[in-house]
Amino acid sequence: MKLKNLVSQRFKENPSDAQIASHALMVRGGYMKYVGNGIFSEYPILRRITSKIEKIIREEMNAIDGQEVLFPVVMPADLWEESGRYNSIGRELVRFEDRNRSKHVLGMTHEEAAVQLVREYASSYQQYPFMIYQIQRKFRDEARPRAGMIRVREFTMKDAYSFHTSQEDLEDYYQKCYDAYNRIFKRAGIPEVVTVKSDSGMMGGSVSHEYMLLTAAGEDTIVLCKECDYRSNMEAAENTVINENAGEMEELACVETPECKTIEAVCEFLHKDILASCKAVVYQKNMDDAYVVAFVRGDYEVNETKLRNLVGEEIHPADITEDAPIVAGYIGPYGISDKVTYYVDLSLKGINSLVAGANKEGYHYTGLNLERDLDKVEYVDIAKVQEGGICPCCGKPSLAISRGIEVGNIFQLGTKYTRSMKMQYMDKDNKLQYPIMGCYGIGVGRLAASICEAKHDDYGPIWPITIAPWEVHLCCMRPDNEDVRKVADGLYEDLQKQGVEVIYDDRTSVRAGEMFADADLIGAPIRVVVSPRNLKNNVVEVTTRDKSVKESVALDQALEFITGLKKQMIEAIEN
Amino acid sequence: MKLKNLVSQRFKENPSDAQIASHALMVRGGYMKYVGNGIFSEYPILRRITSKIEKIIREEMNAIDGQEVLFPVVMPADLWEESGRYNSIGRELVRFEDRNRSKHVLGMTHEEAAVQLVREYASSYQQYPFMIYQIQRKFRDEARPRAGMIRVREFTMKDAYSFHTSQEDLEDYYQKCYDAYNRIFKRAGIPEVVTVKSDSGMMGGSVSHEYMLLTAAGEDTIVLCKECDYRSNMEAAENTVINENAGEMEELACVETPECKTIEAVCEFLHKDILASCKAVVYQKNMDDAYVVAFVRGDYEVNETKLRNLVGEEIHPADITEDAPIVAGYIGPYGISDKVTYYVDLSLKGINSLVAGANKEGYHYTGLNLERDLDKVEYVDIAKVQEGGICPCCGKPSLAISRGIEVGNIFQLGTKYTRSMKMQYMDKDNKLQYPIMGCYGIGVGRLAASICEAKHDDYGPIWPITIAPWEVHLCCMRPDNEDVRKVADGLYEDLQKQGVEVIYDDRTSVRAGEMFADADLIGAPIRVVVSPRNLKNNVVEVTTRDKSVKESVALDQALEFITGLKKQMIEAIEN
Repeated sequence: MKLKNLVSQRFKENPSDAQIASHALMVRGGYMKYVGNGIFSEYPILRRITSKIEKIIREEMNAIDGQEVLFPVVMPADLWEESGRYNSIGRELVRFEDRNRSKHVLGMTHEEAAVQLVREYASSYQQYPFMIYQIQRKFRDEARPRAGMIRVREFTMKDAYSFHTSQEDLEDYYQKCYDAYNRIFKRAGIPEVVTVKSDSGMMGGSVSHEYMLLTAAGEDTIVLCKECDYRSNMEAAENTVINENAGEMEELACVETPECKTIEAVCEFLHKDILASCKAVVYQKNMDDAYVVAFVRGDYEVNETKLRNLVGEEIHPADITEDAPIVAGYIGPYGISDKVTYYVDLSLKGINSLVAGANKEGYHYTGLNLERDLDKVEYVDIAKVQEGGICPCCGKPSLAISRGIEVGNIFQLGTKYTRSMKMQYMDKDNKLQYPIMGCYGIGVGRLAASICEAKHDDYGPIWPITIAPWEVHLCCMRPDNEDVRKVADGLYEDLQKQGVEVIYDDRTSVRAGEMFADADLIGAPIRVVVSPRNLKNNVVEVTTRDKSVKESVALDQALEFITGLKKQMIEAIEN
Repeated sequence: MKLKNLVSQRFKENPSDAQIASHALMVRGGYMKYVGNGIFSEYPILRRITSKIEKIIREEMNAIDGQEVLFPVVMPADLWEESGRYNSIGRELVRFEDRNRSKHVLGMTHEEAAVQLVREYASSYQQYPFMIYQIQRKFRDEARPRAGMIRVREFTMKDAYSFHTSQEDLEDYYQKCYDAYNRIFKRAGIPEVVTVKSDSGMMGGSVSHEYMLLTAAGEDTIVLCKECDYRSNMEAAENTVINENAGEMEELACVETPECKTIEAVCEFLHKDILASCKAVVYQKNMDDAYVVAFVRGDYEVNETKLRNLVGEEIHPADITEDAPIVAGYIGPYGISDKVTYYVDLSLKGINSLVAGANKEGYHYTGLNLERDLDKVEYVDIAKVQEGGICPCCGKPSLAISRGIEVGNIFQLGTKYTRSMKMQYMDKDNKLQYPIMGCYGIGVGRLAASICEAKHDDYGPIWPITIAPWEVHLCCMRPDNEDVRKVADGLYEDLQKQGVEVIYDDRTSVRAGEMFADADLIGAPIRVVVSPRNLKNNVVEVTTRDKSVKESVALDQALEFITGLKKQMIEAIEN
């Protein structure tokens, strides 16, 4: 297509609200248009990219026997009441009433719909295993949409659901899907995506993995071991702390600590090491506002996901009222009200003398020994891993913290949804069983933005040829020169006849600098320039967007050279 | 794929709630699953069909220089406030608040989003014309979803928007799109679709056409002339009535008509011809509940669309209260309260003596002559056309009323949206102008169901090969017979290698009758049967779903015969 006909707007300046490169470049290049908070339209250039990504995803899902279906965006609430998620999910689930005051939700994921579609169908073990998937719009009312297409409220997602008659069969299929996902990211041009173990969160289930593109611009925190293959997202990362009989044993003493409301302030005031302090972090249960206190060593942060899993229900940071059974700033495990549920982190184990709140305004204990002073103490893992922490896999203190963008995820769901929604099949022995599910997601727009994040320079995206909006960007410098136009027009026709996707810039009123800047923003992997100067030497100039190729090619060989280069670039990615 | 692995449920009985064949067959054949009122999931078999329809639509839209984009399903209300539709559209527009109490709507059409996407981009006349389109989910909160996929609340739609600098240019493009639509329906296997003039309704604009599949199961009423090319939907059909000085002139008289609440009852009671009666139909304006009375000849019905266009705002059937300025059952144009707006239909013109309500409980007038007795009378066209009515085009009394399903529509929108949303461009003379828009819609699921409605028999759909879920249905009768299985398996492999889409039924525990019943419900155009009996004669049986072909083909010629038949069937549709 001709660039002058392309519907899109390009800008010279980065948008002021863009904090990451992909967002800035995709707005500047006319890929997307802000419609509302976390809601965008896709211009034709981005739609070409997302269509190609969708095609790759479809091919790989079909290759592992996936069957494409379509679930609705809008679902009656009763479907979500069956699974229990109508009540358990927070405000990210949009709920509304239709004209008959009947309650509905907007799909943010489709486990319920998947079970509803197949629960009568799959009544015999002989029909298993199977996998169904869709590529469909979803809406998640995120509190803080950000980073352009990375965290939006409305998005296109491929979501797949597999059904099995045994955990073993699920694990087999899970592995197939794991491999299919690696092929998808490879074919989309970002083979560097890594998998990390993750927490299943509200999805239920046990084993799950996230596919992470490691980048400082990412919003997820990932824990990687420098010495072995261990990788986990922060939420799921196991924290190992060894305090073997650390510090002197002291007597328990209640001391005045006026105006010391943080653990750092207390330690400074008492001249105590923060590594021998017990920090309290307070939450409340969503259901009844009951207080939950997490105690961790003073230098650690609470891993809310691990805590939530322990509590077994949704929690939120506490709002400590005056009549609360705890005293903000002075909470400690010794003498704490029995109205409060508390958890003691592993990082506190083996410390002989702790500083801890005295549960009394203005006072702390020193010399607290948990095992000596408490009736009973049970240690749990509720702290976030730290840089240099001990790897739970190889045992070396070699954990590194990194940032990443989650570009896909796969879950072993178990029977959470089939049980709650009463989906059963008859097994070989004529017994009713609940099928075991897996689910597998990829956000299409986020993947496009992540590829841009991974592949760009200051001037624009460097799209991998497999998902680029066009394969060749053809520039006709001086289309008013009859010879130049003739050669460029001819090349445009010939390349298209060879099945090459060409964006053709034959604008007359545009300077070379603007032409090249636009080509950079559009990011087609191969650029071909026809100019009066080149034509004098009977050549055209062929360069790649990533600057690895820059050649003057004889006119009569240009077609062959370009199609060859295209083939080579595709093979470099696909093979 | 193998039929035994296909995720879907087939039923022997028609569902009790299905009133039309496509609905019944598409439920029985496992194409769709009810999720909620007017909300369905698509099983793989239907998704294959809708994917093929989407592909045809994309090809034809691209062929007329359409550029694919994607608008969001969820839009902020302010976008719809700009166009005025946030308030003017009724309850079919879903409105909800997000977590920040910010108002949003679910897109039921995307004129606002289209203008928002391009209004900064298309600032110069040089960028025109252009057309953008999307294939996306939409939600319309229909009061009465019905007929399976024909009238649903959530649906996939292709909607296109074109932008022009002159009415002439719009009309040129409109014609291109008109032709593209005809190609789409032809390629989808229903070339018999006709176009009718239609009312633009809430879309605004003037000229518009609907593409109608004529079928008794349709929910739209269409007016066709048997003598000329005139076609219109009922809403837009011009009504011509000629009463030239009809009946005797009488004196106006107020007569008692006790208990006569309908015009039929009055005419019977007074022994008057209904063709000389004046019927009142009462509405109220949505905005302020003001009464609007439509007077038509006793045998006519009111065309609410034409009336609404005259009134210039939304109206609804009246709820006549006790303090209303009109008396239900006794309303007439003579002596009517000046608080009431009334319209007199053309069908009342030229009748010398009418029976009409006396605006007094229990009384009617006889001998009413509108032109003699009213101060002023203006006739308007607000009645529905009748069978045998006069064609506004050729003037003959040859109008026929037919039923149809609307499978697509195209509108000349004018500047309604560009004006209200302040989209302007600079013309050649440096003057700011509002672009002129066209818009063009096709419902994908409804089209699939309409094709089924047009092409089926009692046993299932007869899918046109261009959109069929599979091209060939291969039945292996007695897969336990080694020779049979070998031939069938071989054919399955070979056909797929030739690029033929095959659904392969090699189920062991299924009788021939069930196999064929399932094949009928799946509706693949070509059926190939490998059986012990056929193999004795070294043949396979090839039949078409529409029964036009039924041949025993020698084994060694089967592959060539089937691929040839496929090619021939495609060509018969596409050429």
